[in-house]
Amino acid sequence: MSLTARPEVISLAGGLPATDLFPPHLFEEINAHIAAANRALGLQYGPTEGFDIVKQDIAVVMAHEWTMVDPERIIVTTGGQQAIDLVTKSFVDPGDVVLAESPAYAGALTTFWSYQAQVVHTPMDGDGVIPEALEELLDRLAAEGRRPKFLYVVPNFSNPSGVSLTLERRRRLVDVAAERELLIVEDNPYGLLRFEGQLPPTLLSLDRAENVIYLGSFSKIISPGIRTGWVVSPTAVYQKLVLGKQATDLCSSPLNQLFVHGFVDSGAWREYVATLCSVYASRRDILLATLAEEFPEGSEWTVPTGGFFVWATLPEGLNTGDLLVKAIERNVAFVRGDAFFADGQGETSMRLNFSYLPEDRIAEGIRRLGGVIREQLELQRALGA
Amino acid sequence: MSLTARPEVISLAGGLPATDLFPPHLFEEINAHIAAANRALGLQYGPTEGFDIVKQDIAVVMAHEWTMVDPERIIVTTGGQQAIDLVTKSFVDPGDVVLAESPAYAGALTTFWSYQAQVVHTPMDGDGVIPEALEELLDRLAAEGRRPKFLYVVPNFSNPSGVSLTLERRRRLVDVAAERELLIVEDNPYGLLRFEGQLPPTLLSLDRAENVIYLGSFSKIISPGIRTGWVVSPTAVYQKLVLGKQATDLCSSPLNQLFVHGFVDSGAWREYVATLCSVYASRRDILLATLAEEFPEGSEWTVPTGGFFVWATLPEGLNTGDLLVKAIERNVAFVRGDAFFADGQGETSMRLNFSYLPEDRIAEGIRRLGGVIREQLELQRALGA
Repeated sequence: MSLTARPEVISLAGGLPATDLFPPHLFEEINAHIAAANRALGLQYGPTEGFDIVKQDIAVVMAHEWTMVDPERIIVTTGGQQAIDLVTKSFVDPGDVVLAESPAYAGALTTFWSYQAQVVHTPMDGDGVIPEALEELLDRLAAEGRRPKFLYVVPNFSNPSGVSLTLERRRRLVDVAAERELLIVEDNPYGLLRFEGQLPPTLLSLDRAENVIYLGSFSKIISPGIRTGWVVSPTAVYQKLVLGKQATDLCSSPLNQLFVHGFVDSGAWREYVATLCSVYASRRDILLATLAEEFPEGSEWTVPTGGFFVWATLPEGLNTGDLLVKAIERNVAFVRGDAFFADGQGETSMRLNFSYLPEDRIAEGIRRLGGVIREQLELQRALGA
Repeated sequence: MSLTARPEVISLAGGLPATDLFPPHLFEEINAHIAAANRALGLQYGPTEGFDIVKQDIAVVMAHEWTMVDPERIIVTTGGQQAIDLVTKSFVDPGDVVLAESPAYAGALTTFWSYQAQVVHTPMDGDGVIPEALEELLDRLAAEGRRPKFLYVVPNFSNPSGVSLTLERRRRLVDVAAERELLIVEDNPYGLLRFEGQLPPTLLSLDRAENVIYLGSFSKIISPGIRTGWVVSPTAVYQKLVLGKQATDLCSSPLNQLFVHGFVDSGAWREYVATLCSVYASRRDILLATLAEEFPEGSEWTVPTGGFFVWATLPEGLNTGDLLVKAIERNVAFVRGDAFFADGQGETSMRLNFSYLPEDRIAEGIRRLGGVIREQLELQRALGA
């Protein structure tokens, strides 16, 4: 990341929220309250599963996605990444198959590999994971005597695709999970960052058979710097997950948990999320409009209705790995598509972030990128490729 | 822990620092500075290996233990527990042997087991791990064709024993490691909490062959609520550890790292550590004096010159597991000795904490415990046991 961190580089690569938008007065007020009322508590060790008040806050936040959760099923984690790590550590043995959408969050793939899982992708289109294709894949694996430990899916504005699962497919996925006794790991860090359209139900809220483990995060709706996420666990495995977390880092920062509580309890988080949605929607619009002007004929991209990312696919023959080297020379960066696959797919695709940079920088970044792509196309034509 | 968390219970069980001693004005000043200068940075994702300024702060703190470290070898972790987890995850495969002092920190044993390590204890006395016994153990394991992945040792005021390694044994241990190509994991959360005596060198500072991985923590000298520790890694495995951490939680809280930086950079941490040492030394004195009055003939205990814990061993025939049940009925708690062994040793011993409670509560706790032990002895005599 050092190359893309140079100030002259316009990086559309990262998955960073716009933390400069966080209200300064709230930051001060929350810390002042902790200083006055809870200093020694915040500085002390806390319970491994998290403070009860924070588990209740999480239940409140999840109710805004129409998902009712018993706080006793929640484990506070050190960011969403630890939630992925904890679930993988608890369920995956070396050689086990893990199913992932395609493309899938690169940080999840890294974690699956760190426990020596074999990642198999299940097909996806503009409406998310395709249930029929998943069933075919499960049949094929069953015929080989292999039973996947879980399916990893980001149903809302997925990273990197920006795609969301339709309501119909959500229902079908949960049914397939019940019929096949398949565990679904639903990772939903972006769900509340919806710019348009209806709020669909979470897979967890549709689940009647405890086949869904839900992963949440405050990274995108409050701040990633406080490293606070959560797991909603089926009752049967709750203690196993708590013991796994205890062995990993004893507890998530009580000081940061009190910060979360201050923000959620104030009610200000809803206004903040609304601000983020408004700013990110405008940034997405600029990104999409500039893509339409700059990217060559034959390119395609997703049109997300929320979240952080657009997934763009270039005409056949263009390799985004090669392109990235040239792009960085021109001071613009993205993430190459094959980073989101376990099997080399995605080589003509790229992930473009719109949450972090101001509109003019996003537009300038896409213009630079368009120039690099045009040059590459001309070079290929000149070489008769 | 719920039983021991009842307010009427005097718990000598926990390993909690006295966070109520943290200077309120510093807490406010540090947060005010972050709010004014670094709010967006603190709320954002940070580098996986930690902020450079915090790595430099850690080098400054380690220099106070006469250990010079290149900040480029430091990885900031989410508390000392994550440092243990990270090293274990990176080096241990299922079935591998890990050597641990006896008794050893229960939280480390849990982590070793979570990666399916086989823990073998190496003998220890009042001067710490016995190098000759370690060599015999290594010979025996080698004869069985087994090579331990590392030796885990807390050289200063160990948890739970309170015992420290002598200088001579430190030198010998490092030599043994070099001769046998044994990796030593030196865990040193308590080193700066020295009440009396000379500061011995760390194993890391004696090591010339990169056989020592050093684990540090701000939990005991600043606060555990900020979950900030570190690893000093041999150059050869640094990137492996960074990738392991990335898969686990991406980065340790930037907000908490800025808090650490504010405190260390202010220089106030040295005065705070001096205050802690003074308070803890008095609490230790009360604990030891009351033990001498209350515990039966034939009991023994360690006399630590720093840290958090006294390790007390009762006369043969008394089982601290049985005793704990009765103790909690009388509203006093400790940790039973066998929690610190992988092999059932320690059943006549207990860990007693002196860092957390005020002096009068410590004395009252030991008096209650003395009463419980006397009753148990009388019962055994009456039964002719």
